[in-house]
This record gives sequence, structure tokens and C-alpha cells, in this order.
Amino acid sequence: MADSHEKQKIAEECARVLGERDAATAHLGMELVSVTPGNVVITMTVKDYMVQGHGNCHGGYIFTLADSAFAFACNTYNAVTVAQGCSIEYMKPAILGDALVAKASEVSRGKRTGVYDVRIERSDGELVALMRGKSYQVNATLL
Amino acid sequence: MADSHEKQKIAEECARVLGERDAATAHLGMELVSVTPGNVVITMTVKDYMVQGHGNCHGGYIFTLADSAFAFACNTYNAVTVAQGCSIEYMKPAILGDALVAKASEVSRGKRTGVYDVRIERSDGELVALMRGKSYQVNATLL
Amino acid sequence: MADSHEKQKIAEECARVLGERDAATAHLGMELVSVTPGNVVITMTVKDYMVQGHGNCHGGYIFTLADSAFAFACNTYNAVTVAQGCSIEYMKPAILGDALVAKASEVSRGKRTGVYDVRIERSDGELVALMRGKSYQVNATLL
Amino acid sequence: MADSHEKQKIAEECARVLGERDAATAHLGMELVSVTPGNVVITMTVKDYMVQGHGNCHGGYIFTLADSAFAFACNTYNAVTVAQGCSIEYMKPAILGDALVAKASEVSRGKRTGVYDVRIERSDGELVALMRGKSYQVNATLL
Repeated sequence: MADSHEKQKIAEECARVLGERDAATAHLGMELVSVTPGNVVITMTVKDYMVQGHGNCHGGYIFTLADSAFAFACNTYNAVTVAQGCSIEYMKPAILGDALVAKASEVSRGKRTGVYDVRIERSDGELVALMRGKSYQVNATLL
Repeated sequence: MADSHEKQKIAEECARVLGERDAATAHLGMELVSVTPGNVVITMTVKDYMVQGHGNCHGGYIFTLADSAFAFACNTYNAVTVAQGCSIEYMKPAILGDALVAKASEVSRGKRTGVYDVRIERSDGELVALMRGKSYQVNATLL
Repeated sequence: MADSHEKQKIAEECARVLGERDAATAHLGMELVSVTPGNVVITMTVKDYMVQGHGNCHGGYIFTLADSAFAFACNTYNAVTVAQGCSIEYMKPAILGDALVAKASEVSRGKRTGVYDVRIERSDGELVALMRGKSYQVNATLL
Repeated sequence: MADSHEKQKIAEECARVLGERDAATAHLGMELVSVTPGNVVITMTVKDYMVQGHGNCHGGYIFTLADSAFAFACNTYNAVTVAQGCSIEYMKPAILGDALVAKASEVSRGKRTGVYDVRIERSDGELVALMRGKSYQVNATLL
């Protein structure tokens, strides 16, 4: 109990520090909704500068939201962890003004490598995209 | 010859039209260097708002550059084509000020679906990331 | 209710017909445990000829099990559906004699394309691999 | 020159040792055509037990061929290297009797992780599938 309380505090502190340093995530108006070890929820509203040539949110911004959720989720253990690679599948388009929610959850984590799944949903619950991130833990602490 | 000249004109016209409509790509300062049927080269310089919590260019922006190159490359035939999904592998970080080049090339294209490979390189030629995009052609024309 | 009963009958009939035709799946000793529309569970035991150079089950056979589960799951609607592409992440090795279970579940299915997730587990519940399959429905019926 | 000759000898020796241990690859009748550091070419003929329910070579066997090529290619440095994950895109079906060729080439290799691309072609040169493998080097030697 004390241990899980401690882990939760570390997860929150990691998210706070990462959030302060991460100009990219802040610039896009992303907001951290919740964080637990290995899992985060982040929101982002689709802005006019995110709309692409077919009139929908550019897949790059949907990916960027998912990637931020993945990055925050895999950096909840005070061990600097970077992305090796990701895959994303698009299900439904998102449009201007949509409040997107990215839910990142840890699927597995070994000594070095980990796998995280991220669901990107519209506020009506429709699945916009599924992203899978592969992480790699380097020899450095975050805090 | 005339035919390939015609195809080249269509590819250029598609890129022009898509570029005009695509606020997202323009907003990030991407520039189209070249376009042929199925292939494009696009550049983007890493700006301060693209830097993430570990001090490097956010993977989301590297992906977004690759995704734009993929989108322009698969929309060179006057047939509206969207992304089904993508995967990306990161090799080297990019930092503030790096002039990134994304080279998208068509690997295969069937009646509906296609595969495109995108190399993202730094100006010194170092490979930053490899992206593979899967496209889907819908029943609509672009021009 | 009657409708869902009918759908279930179609799913079972599709699996039966596909199973009869599928020499590859039969050859490897795979067994269908359960089928519902969009979802199947299949088992396979790791045999001596599946062991690779590092002493574990060759990733190709783990993938093949997942791929069969994916194929059976996306062919439960009496519409011939093929694989466009797949990705797999390996978590734990499997060894000779392991009774592997592949659980395929439908994540999304549109008019043409679909996404299926497959978990491959050992009998002790350990996650061996995660596979994600992208399907494409062609214009033909299965039954 | 002497150095590259030495590396080539190590690559060949690694392939020989891996081939002797790898019952899975041998069982499927795969043959190593060539090996250099980071790259291999392997062939396999589609046999009757590899045909699936739609009458084509089961994607699992195409993947297995690609996966073996990837495994041999990433194990040419006398450092035990395993697959973390792979993705595959299917372009054309393969049928009974097709002599498939898998060409694995190294895209990048860092201290621990690497990326390998594998083309699977029919003997008429048609592209059957593209596979991308992500490797992880463990602390052990192969020879």
C-alpha cells in the first residue's frame, strides 16, 4: 500500500517534470487528465491549424497526441524512456473542434523495452485511432 | 512520353491543390521540394515549439513531416487517397534547427490500397526515422 | 436475438468451411476453441520442428498461429476477407511443448477494412506476443 | 580489407551455426543463398501444407520465411540478437510451387537495437510482401 502510494507519487512527479520541459506538448494545448504508473490520459482539441487537405485533422496531430500520451505513460518510473517506434491505425476522422482523448496503457515492460497501447477517442466515445508504441529505457533518471 | 508528361502534370497539379488546402502542412513551414507520380520530397526545419521533454524534436513532428510526405505522394493521381495506418521507427534524434528532409516513395499501389516508404534524414544525410504508410483510395477525384 | 443467433450460426459455418479448406492451419495441429462474430480462440502446441536456432519457438510459428486466429476472426461474416498486413511484438519466448492460445478480437470493421487484435498466451497466462492484423474485404462470399 | 574479410568469415560462420541449430528453418526447406554482414538471401518453395483456406500460401509461412531471413541477417556479428517485433505488408499472393526469395538487408544497427527490411519476391520478380524487423542484441555470443 505504502509502496503503491510511493509509486503513484513518482508517476505524478515524472509527469509534472516532463510536462514542464515539453514545449511541444504544451504548444498544442494538450492537458494531462490522469496519470498512474504506466498509464495516462491526455486531451487535445483539434485546432484550425491542424486541418489537412481533405478537411480533417491531419493524421500527424492525432499521432502526436498519441505519442505524447505514450511518452508520458512510459516515463512514470523515474527512468528516462524513449520511443523506438510506433504504429497507428486510423478508424474515423476527427474534425475541427473535436475534443480528443488519448488513453495510454502499459501492455508490457521488461528491463529495457516496453509496449504501450493508446486509444484516441472523440468525446462521443468513437474510436479515432489506435496507436502502439515501443519504448526503450536508457540509463538515466528523470527526476 | 506524352503520357508520362501528362502524369507528371497531374502529379504537380495535385500537389499544388493539396498544398493550398492543407493548413496543417503549411503551418509547420513544410516545403515541397519535388514531386513525381507516387513520390515527393518535403523539408521542414525543427522549431522551438517542436522540442519535447528530453530536449529533442518531438517524435510527433517527425511523424507529421513523414505523414505529409506520404499524403502528398499517394495523392499524385487525382484520386483522393487517405491513410489507413502507418508505422515509424526512430534511428537518431533531431534537434532544434535541424533541416529535415522527408523522401516518400511508392512501393506498391493496387486498385484500392498502397504502400509508401518515407525516409526522414537530417541535412548531413543521417537517417532520423523510417516511416511506412498504408493508403486507401476512395471514390473521389482531387482536382 | 434471433438475428444474433443467425449471425452466430454464420460465424460457426464460416469457421467450419475455412477450417476444412485450410491445410496450413490443420497441418500445424491448431484447434479452434471458440468462435463468435469477429472473435475466435485457437490453440497450438509448440512442436520440435518449430524450434529455432536460439532454442525457442520460431517467431514465424507464433505469428502463424496469430495469423490463423486473425484470418478466422475476420472471416466470420460470410464475406471473403484477406490480410493486408500485420504487426507483431514479442514479449516472452515460448518453448517446446508449450500449449499456446491465440485470442483474436475485432477492434473495428468498416465497409472494406478492419483491425483485429490477437493475444498469444502460454497456458500459464503469460503474454507471449501481441499481433495486430489489418483486413480487407473482397467482393466474394465464403459459404 | 583484412578486416572486412574477417567480418565476412564471421557472418558466414554465424549463419552456418544458426542453420545447424535451427530446426524450424530447415524443416520448411529454406536454403541460404548468400550472407554478408547484416544481409542474407534465403529461398523457400511453397509446399502443399502451406496453402490456406483461400487457396494461397498462408501468410504465416511468408512471414516465417521473412522472419528467418531477418534472424539470419541480424545474427551475422557473433552477438546473439533476437526479434523484438515485426510488421509485414502483403502485396501479391503466392501459390503452390512458387519459389520465394527473401532478401534481408540491414537498415540501421545501434548498440542494442536494429532495423532490417526484408523483401519477399516470387521468382518472376513480383513483390509478394515487405517485412520490417526490429532486433535486440542480448549479452551473449553465438559462436
